[in-house]
Amino acid sequence: MKDSWLEDVKWNSDGLVPVIAQESGTGKVLMMAWMNRAALQETVLHARATYWSRSKQRLWRKGEQSGHVQSVKQIRLDCDGDTVLLEVEQTGLACHTGRKTCFFRQLGSENWAEIEPVEKDPQAIYGKKS
Amino acid sequence: MKDSWLEDVKWNSDGLVPVIAQESGTGKVLMMAWMNRAALQETVLHARATYWSRSKQRLWRKGEQSGHVQSVKQIRLDCDGDTVLLEVEQTGLACHTGRKTCFFRQLGSENWAEIEPVEKDPQAIYGKKS
Repeated sequence: MKDSWLEDVKWNSDGLVPVIAQESGTGKVLMMAWMNRAALQETVLHARATYWSRSKQRLWRKGEQSGHVQSVKQIRLDCDGDTVLLEVEQTGLACHTGRKTCFFRQLGSENWAEIEPVEKDPQAIYGKKS
Repeated sequence: MKDSWLEDVKWNSDGLVPVIAQESGTGKVLMMAWMNRAALQETVLHARATYWSRSKQRLWRKGEQSGHVQSVKQIRLDCDGDTVLLEVEQTGLACHTGRKTCFFRQLGSENWAEIEPVEKDPQAIYGKKS
């Protein structure tokens, strides 16, 4: 039955599932975001990561503004069916702060220290083009 | 101010945050679970992963029954402060199905295929000791 695999995913009460994006090759965990059914279907269809933006309440085609798209190599589901893991090739930078990964803060003795460099000024990534 | 780092975490409306556990060295993503403040505090205090079990509604000291504990090497927070990433040394197997990782299903053309072997019978992991 077509798309029965979608029914194996345990969507939460908002119809969403958390999705981890991990970089192919390096194994670096880049980000965590959410998908609804349509986002996962589109991700599979185009092999490009599309998430559901909870803040904007719309499909969010990763890289739609920045060009920092994620080409999807593999999609995994966990034992409970309630978390998805993507293996991706990341064009540019995953984080909107201009860093490779969103997980750039590390817990020290009493605070979070920024341990990943800003590789590109966010204004240069998202600034309006003339 | 002590524990002000806890306030940098954006706890959801249930007071929880999703937590990704990644294996040190291999970079393998082992599981995703949830923590509340107490779980994260205990995790930091003992450098052992403690989660919040949503099904049991209590602290879940990973490995409390199986012995498959997670020694925590590093704790990261993402840009939005709403996801935590643990680097762990996993004793035994992360998954209750007897697999190394919970992400053992991979999407094929029309279904999820199991691509990680069962390394230990779950009954042998969780069975009552005489």
